[in-house]
Amino acid sequence: MNNFPLGYRAWGLYSGIGKNKSKPDLALFYSETACQSAGVFTRNQVKAAPVLLSQERIRSGLGRARAVLINSGNANACTGARGMKDARESALAAALGLTVSIEDVLVASTGVIGQFLPMANLKAGISRICQVIQRESDPPRAVRAMMTTDTVPKFEGRSLKAGGRTYRIWGCVKGAGMIHPDMATMISVILTDAQVPASFLKAALKRAVNESFNCATVDGDTSTNDSVYLLANGVSGVTLSSAKDLKDFEAALNDLCLSLARRMVRDGEGATKLVEIAVTGARTSTDAKKAAVTVATSPLVKTAVFGNDANWGRIFAALGRSGAHLNQNKIKVAFGNLTVARHGVGLAFSEKRGREILKRDTVPLSIDLGMGKAKAKILTCDFSFDYVKINAEYRT
Amino acid sequence: MNNFPLGYRAWGLYSGIGKNKSKPDLALFYSETACQSAGVFTRNQVKAAPVLLSQERIRSGLGRARAVLINSGNANACTGARGMKDARESALAAALGLTVSIEDVLVASTGVIGQFLPMANLKAGISRICQVIQRESDPPRAVRAMMTTDTVPKFEGRSLKAGGRTYRIWGCVKGAGMIHPDMATMISVILTDAQVPASFLKAALKRAVNESFNCATVDGDTSTNDSVYLLANGVSGVTLSSAKDLKDFEAALNDLCLSLARRMVRDGEGATKLVEIAVTGARTSTDAKKAAVTVATSPLVKTAVFGNDANWGRIFAALGRSGAHLNQNKIKVAFGNLTVARHGVGLAFSEKRGREILKRDTVPLSIDLGMGKAKAKILTCDFSFDYVKINAEYRT
Repeated sequence: MNNFPLGYRAWGLYSGIGKNKSKPDLALFYSETACQSAGVFTRNQVKAAPVLLSQERIRSGLGRARAVLINSGNANACTGARGMKDARESALAAALGLTVSIEDVLVASTGVIGQFLPMANLKAGISRICQVIQRESDPPRAVRAMMTTDTVPKFEGRSLKAGGRTYRIWGCVKGAGMIHPDMATMISVILTDAQVPASFLKAALKRAVNESFNCATVDGDTSTNDSVYLLANGVSGVTLSSAKDLKDFEAALNDLCLSLARRMVRDGEGATKLVEIAVTGARTSTDAKKAAVTVATSPLVKTAVFGNDANWGRIFAALGRSGAHLNQNKIKVAFGNLTVARHGVGLAFSEKRGREILKRDTVPLSIDLGMGKAKAKILTCDFSFDYVKINAEYRT
Repeated sequence: MNNFPLGYRAWGLYSGIGKNKSKPDLALFYSETACQSAGVFTRNQVKAAPVLLSQERIRSGLGRARAVLINSGNANACTGARGMKDARESALAAALGLTVSIEDVLVASTGVIGQFLPMANLKAGISRICQVIQRESDPPRAVRAMMTTDTVPKFEGRSLKAGGRTYRIWGCVKGAGMIHPDMATMISVILTDAQVPASFLKAALKRAVNESFNCATVDGDTSTNDSVYLLANGVSGVTLSSAKDLKDFEAALNDLCLSLARRMVRDGEGATKLVEIAVTGARTSTDAKKAAVTVATSPLVKTAVFGNDANWGRIFAALGRSGAHLNQNKIKVAFGNLTVARHGVGLAFSEKRGREILKRDTVPLSIDLGMGKAKAKILTCDFSFDYVKINAEYRT
């Protein structure tokens, strides 16, 4: 496993939560030594039990952790007091199995909302995974166990140097729904074998998430279960303390998160392409974000992109209802280097060229509002038949 | 034509805007005598030329009108100065053809955004329709000419009595996209042969639209072209002035608009059913509306409804990001009389019974937030394969 940090183990197995026995549904990431940890969670007011539990752990435990236990197939959300008890019992089972403190176990769940976890199956699965992980490690297998409607496992790592020594940072993500994590759960686990100061780790994760996973979503529009965890165990022997080393680490973390966010969006439910929307010329950054998010979430824009149709009129209509300050006669819209509208009016562009750009794996869409200097970027995907199919049939 | 008001004529024909020669694309509603008129328009910041022109007419002309000219196939939006000139020339051509003042002609357009109207075809069509309408009238034909992706013409009328005499009120609507009129254009024309005081007409239309078409949409989320017109010509000889008569008229107008809004949503692009969402127990009416609109526009909720899946967890997730004040442990959700979640937790309900309710033509969904006394209703539809198909292939 390239660039998988030292001192961590990962495993996945089928515990009997999901119906499909050939798809693992329980993942465990485990550090052989104590870690600093940081977490960023959903801002949805309806929070799943594992989110409430892990938030509390991270707050009260001064950021220490040893393991992240994740199940797919059941979100353990809207499950009331019994859901909280189930989350606690899962963490306890993992703590016992790994012989660590219960405070050291972070948990996350993804899947159907509103059903209780099959605790007998789950506890037996946790017991087994804790045994296996003592002698085995297979990170891609853990990543597959986190997946729900994802079609490919998404993970990658980097090697960096500090003080002449090498350390690693590695991350994985399970996406699901569309970019909008409110439409399903996103869970990401990021591991490094460097030693990183706790307060820096926390702040760096927050900044990285804001510029990556949160650029693939509406502000505050998150699911009941979204969680991003970052663990740092220091096993490489590298301790990051100089400004330069911390800066390098942060740059790698940002780059990793952005790359994972891109992969997550590209693998959005039913998505056939990634759309990178860049709004410039807004009066304020709030305006820029409003404009970008409204275009990025418009079903009419997303279906047109699926149909390879440079239908810029729908972009104008979305901008008009975005709430951003605008003057329709100043708006410019381009797909790649093909400007399709300027000063609020369509240009005589080549439809063939438009189709070519829209057929790409990654479609760059730039919108200049011509009102100021603020800008925003957002990642989205198209909206296809398969999105409807996946979501009409998801639960039953 | 049942309940079509006296003194009006309506016609539709193919003028060469659309590609399909068997589908009329130009509609004209014409009153033989002067009318009081009122209009309600889109709140989208990007407004089509016909909206800008008609808004100005209604403001400056003290509410008089004789004709409403509507074309489908081209929205005349994002067309700049040339679009405004085209809208004015269309109105002028109709005024000449009908021998009325240009101030008497209201216009509306629906269809693709950002293309110029084929003015030679359109002017010839206007000249013809003004001739034909002198001797012919066929309201359903006019309604068909307004349609874009609508699958059925939507119109209906009522007869009322005032002072022992009969008068009529009739309305039609072209919907299109989903309930969200931001997703396409909605145009409605309402006609009455009563005489109604101008200020009352205006206020009553605004109230009726707020409780009907605007309950099928997000506040402020309207397309570039949405327009609702109400004309009153007094040809029945009935003049409404007593409080009781005005109240009866307003009740009929409200009822008509709500019925047309229901038909519009039910005929939403790709819709297979109507969903009537009632939120109660909100702290404020703003909260109630936020909650209702967020659920009504959630693709995850809408695809689950399409799949006849009582997936109430997605409703909780939508509520959680709606911005309404809530406590997840107080939320109650029911489909019809089947309560599926209470105190924030799912109940052991019959999935079979859930599927039966969700398979109905009209699905009642009630959400009690348990926080206060405010409420809101909203109409929405499900989200099907056909929605994607229609909108991926719309323009090309």
